[in-house]
Amino acid sequence: MFSAKTVIRDLEKIRRQVPLVHNITNFVVMNLTANALLSIGASPVMAHAVEEVEEMVGLASAVVINIGTLSRHWVEAMEKAITAAEKKNIPVILDPVGAGATSYRTATARRLLETGRVAIIRGNGSEIRALLDAGARTKGVDSLEGPEAAVETARLLSEKYGCAVSISGPVDIIVRSEETVRIGNGHPLMPRVTGLGCTASALTGAFAAVDSNYLEAAAGAMIVMGICGELAAEQARGPASFELHFLDWLHNIGEKEIRERIKIFL
Amino acid sequence: MFSAKTVIRDLEKIRRQVPLVHNITNFVVMNLTANALLSIGASPVMAHAVEEVEEMVGLASAVVINIGTLSRHWVEAMEKAITAAEKKNIPVILDPVGAGATSYRTATARRLLETGRVAIIRGNGSEIRALLDAGARTKGVDSLEGPEAAVETARLLSEKYGCAVSISGPVDIIVRSEETVRIGNGHPLMPRVTGLGCTASALTGAFAAVDSNYLEAAAGAMIVMGICGELAAEQARGPASFELHFLDWLHNIGEKEIRERIKIFL
Amino acid sequence: MFSAKTVIRDLEKIRRQVPLVHNITNFVVMNLTANALLSIGASPVMAHAVEEVEEMVGLASAVVINIGTLSRHWVEAMEKAITAAEKKNIPVILDPVGAGATSYRTATARRLLETGRVAIIRGNGSEIRALLDAGARTKGVDSLEGPEAAVETARLLSEKYGCAVSISGPVDIIVRSEETVRIGNGHPLMPRVTGLGCTASALTGAFAAVDSNYLEAAAGAMIVMGICGELAAEQARGPASFELHFLDWLHNIGEKEIRERIKIFL
Repeated sequence: MFSAKTVIRDLEKIRRQVPLVHNITNFVVMNLTANALLSIGASPVMAHAVEEVEEMVGLASAVVINIGTLSRHWVEAMEKAITAAEKKNIPVILDPVGAGATSYRTATARRLLETGRVAIIRGNGSEIRALLDAGARTKGVDSLEGPEAAVETARLLSEKYGCAVSISGPVDIIVRSEETVRIGNGHPLMPRVTGLGCTASALTGAFAAVDSNYLEAAAGAMIVMGICGELAAEQARGPASFELHFLDWLHNIGEKEIRERIKIFL
Repeated sequence: MFSAKTVIRDLEKIRRQVPLVHNITNFVVMNLTANALLSIGASPVMAHAVEEVEEMVGLASAVVINIGTLSRHWVEAMEKAITAAEKKNIPVILDPVGAGATSYRTATARRLLETGRVAIIRGNGSEIRALLDAGARTKGVDSLEGPEAAVETARLLSEKYGCAVSISGPVDIIVRSEETVRIGNGHPLMPRVTGLGCTASALTGAFAAVDSNYLEAAAGAMIVMGICGELAAEQARGPASFELHFLDWLHNIGEKEIRERIKIFL
Repeated sequence: MFSAKTVIRDLEKIRRQVPLVHNITNFVVMNLTANALLSIGASPVMAHAVEEVEEMVGLASAVVINIGTLSRHWVEAMEKAITAAEKKNIPVILDPVGAGATSYRTATARRLLETGRVAIIRGNGSEIRALLDAGARTKGVDSLEGPEAAVETARLLSEKYGCAVSISGPVDIIVRSEETVRIGNGHPLMPRVTGLGCTASALTGAFAAVDSNYLEAAAGAMIVMGICGELAAEQARGPASFELHFLDWLHNIGEKEIRERIKIFL
């Protein structure tokens, strides 16, 4: 049964094991996500050259693929990384940034999902929705609205790809087949900092590296994100000081903050 | 008549309309400029793949082109973006970073200006000057010095390309044909933070997205930059805390700060 | 004789001469290293296009090559930059990020060392060790452990390439042939911020630009890094506030802080 205990255990495991999380991500957020991974206690590596990407996956405990500023050679590296991760049996987290905004992004995100096994897809509602083809959307979710539509979209994707799906929003929704976790932690300043969605994906990678129950891993990452956001907001005077306190809290958060603040609705 | 009122109106429009500003910019400043746009209330997107750049322009209200870390494929995307923006009739802001420093940058900046309509060129004095060819420089400005030379250079460029020209410096100078606005806001710590010039260009994009009078838009962005710089400096203990407070102030600045601090010389 | 005096003199020279330091570095740290160079008083430029790299070297007083997120075209630019710097007789600092982690990185770092004269190699122990070929390692250092092995590795590399070698760690070790400087400044939070190793390389570039005694230059950079780290740690509540205070201290550090805190063991 998913609870504060699970999150605390996974967080302690991250800090003890210091898993290497290999990121192929976008230019905008590289620095922030590397720092977020360091702050929480993991070890980040960023490497995208086709010449080395498979070897780097060989050293990693999780791979995070983020298509935020994609281009041809980077996509080639992402495919190689996914294939190598499947072979090595380590989790892949896919963040389909901007899927639905341009057809190149939608097509790339879908192709990456077909390339090999993905453990967790993490994005916002419209990105996740864009991953379903038109047929599935019409049949499954087009008549639904709001969180209900998000859950149904996630369920369809989860079953199609055998993965967990993590949708961020005012209430975060994590779905694996018939199971759903809803998380109420977070703060309205979070979308005012660029790359906090990408940071959620990177931290999801750290949790998945130490917890092969990917529903738990995805939920744990969003809970830690959300609580650190709440704590940071109490000290912030704007988005930049919010980001600073958020990163400091990733370093300092422990059992006490998680127990006191966790908001899950199963 | 340009005044505090214009700036306040444009700032409120940005926060109400949340314009999407599409940036093709350099690796050094991507994170900062995205955060600056979010802080002021706009919505940033960074995308440079030739496969999607035109589609992304189709979603945007302004396009910001910055050649800070240019290379061949990026320039190709910049050209496509400019052409698409002209077709869609949305403003393009060009920041010719380092024009004059290397011939590749000078040639690229000039070629981009010939590619399609640019609404506003924003750079420092030497970059702007490098955009004029040798003939124009000799005839027009080589006998002048200091701010007088900057105004004359800007005027020649403005007439050649039918755009506004925004030159940052201790006094910012905005020129459109015969009109000139001089702005006295700002702080000496600003050039000690990397990318604040690029940030000025990004914010100019946000203002141009809501105000088709590009002289006003360019001036409004520089005034908000300068005032936030002054406010940040009062709290800063060095360049990094200055940058943090500057971004927080972009989020918090309002009518009061603008009315009290605006320094324009028409 | 190396002492606080040397560091203070070089720091003052950086602030007076404002040397242009040309960086071809990785995406993760570009913003941080540019800001660190600005904070200490140098002038950073980032440019990697093969079309302009030689011309940019022509403007610079030092070149910093960092293979953190390398790929083919970037390596080509690095080679051109090294060749141009040798021709112009300005120092090259090489940071072999991740050498030893993948064979592509190891091979690239070694090839860059063969491309032209390198003034200072700066990395951590395992990166530096990976630069030696297996034969040299077996003969020279494989029987040694800890700092003793690091010094011996550095000595072998220093003699092979005629350069200084700077190894960061709890105790930093700078070696040039038979000379060794050990530095005890620094703080355990430093490896919790991404890119502080790369920042050390960038600052080493600033020092080498004003001091052609590269042993002194490399040591001066590590001392300033370490002292700013100690000062920042006194104010920090986590890695992000540490980074902010560190950058502010690079701007504010002076004779007093260096004299009071310098820890060198010759």
